[in-house]
Amino acid sequence: MTETAESTKLILASASSVRQTLLRNAGLEFEAVDSRADEDAIKAGFAEGDLERDAATDALALKLAEEKALAVSARFPGALVIGADQILSCMGKRYDKPKSMSEARANLTEFRGRAHILHSGLVLVKDGATVWRHSARAVLTMRAFSDRFLDHYLAETGSMVMKSVGCYQLEGPGVQLFDRIEGDYFSILGLPMLPLLAELRRNGVVRA
Amino acid sequence: MTETAESTKLILASASSVRQTLLRNAGLEFEAVDSRADEDAIKAGFAEGDLERDAATDALALKLAEEKALAVSARFPGALVIGADQILSCMGKRYDKPKSMSEARANLTEFRGRAHILHSGLVLVKDGATVWRHSARAVLTMRAFSDRFLDHYLAETGSMVMKSVGCYQLEGPGVQLFDRIEGDYFSILGLPMLPLLAELRRNGVVRA
Repeated sequence: MTETAESTKLILASASSVRQTLLRNAGLEFEAVDSRADEDAIKAGFAEGDLERDAATDALALKLAEEKALAVSARFPGALVIGADQILSCMGKRYDKPKSMSEARANLTEFRGRAHILHSGLVLVKDGATVWRHSARAVLTMRAFSDRFLDHYLAETGSMVMKSVGCYQLEGPGVQLFDRIEGDYFSILGLPMLPLLAELRRNGVVRA
Repeated sequence: MTETAESTKLILASASSVRQTLLRNAGLEFEAVDSRADEDAIKAGFAEGDLERDAATDALALKLAEEKALAVSARFPGALVIGADQILSCMGKRYDKPKSMSEARANLTEFRGRAHILHSGLVLVKDGATVWRHSARAVLTMRAFSDRFLDHYLAETGSMVMKSVGCYQLEGPGVQLFDRIEGDYFSILGLPMLPLLAELRRNGVVRA
């Protein structure tokens, strides 16, 4: 149903298995290429300018998505390259994936009883030029769970908790952390599929 | 993290594998029991009264959830029984799972270019009494896809299309049918997990 037009090769500039699975399950034919972009350097070089903090985080997610896609585009002339990134912020502070169980515990303690934002950036790049950009936010509110709950949660999830920037998977025990979830499933997973598919249809890459 | 209180047995009055998977992945301990309630008879005997059509569908989904849970509760004294049901309506008309590929094609042709509503009904029953009720709606808008797209979609999904009342799975090629999705992931799958977990915590059945 969804083979790409014979003329345009579709590439996902991401090593993320979640994003690859979303695209593959949707029936798209594509190649996944790790951009090897230096995300830390891009983050360090990012100037927020006059942007409000959450808007700056949206812009940073777009910037990271774009740099990854541009790096891949340089190696694949003529291909349409999907770049995607997601950043978590809570109370204006940005978080990375926890590197240890104790960092996961500290982060979850900061998220507890508060809303955090998942900022998604999504771009399409062709021959070194960005042809489309999209930002999306999901807002997730963690409940004021008990320390005892947290102990059990960390014991049960184990090192899986370090695989996600938010220290949870909604399809797993992570759902028990939440009071409220606003935003669509795909944006939460870091790849807003509906706007992406609409744009791919407009480009004739996916059958309309 | 989520063992039920030793005093209360939790039962899901549903043979739905999707609902069982959602509860199991969340870490809950429960038993799934098919209610063997006669859904067609309940639907046939349902009086809409003065309710507006969509409100009547909400009420019918609750009624079906409740009848299933009551039937199971009678067999398991002392257990907390989860009843859940979901009904799809489009332009006020209610739909059942398609029984053939041609019925799936006809339904998708009716859904095309329109919004449909997934009405979820969710109840908790204990010792023959309903102790909690919850209704949720998700609204999904299908795009005006081409006949050619529909041909390919049906060819690719095959008989899987008959496994869902809406003729789609959002985690699969079904995502390509949509322009817009409003409603949380769990309500779309027919088991609004966040309100359910909140109520189970209030009942002391799940750790807070």
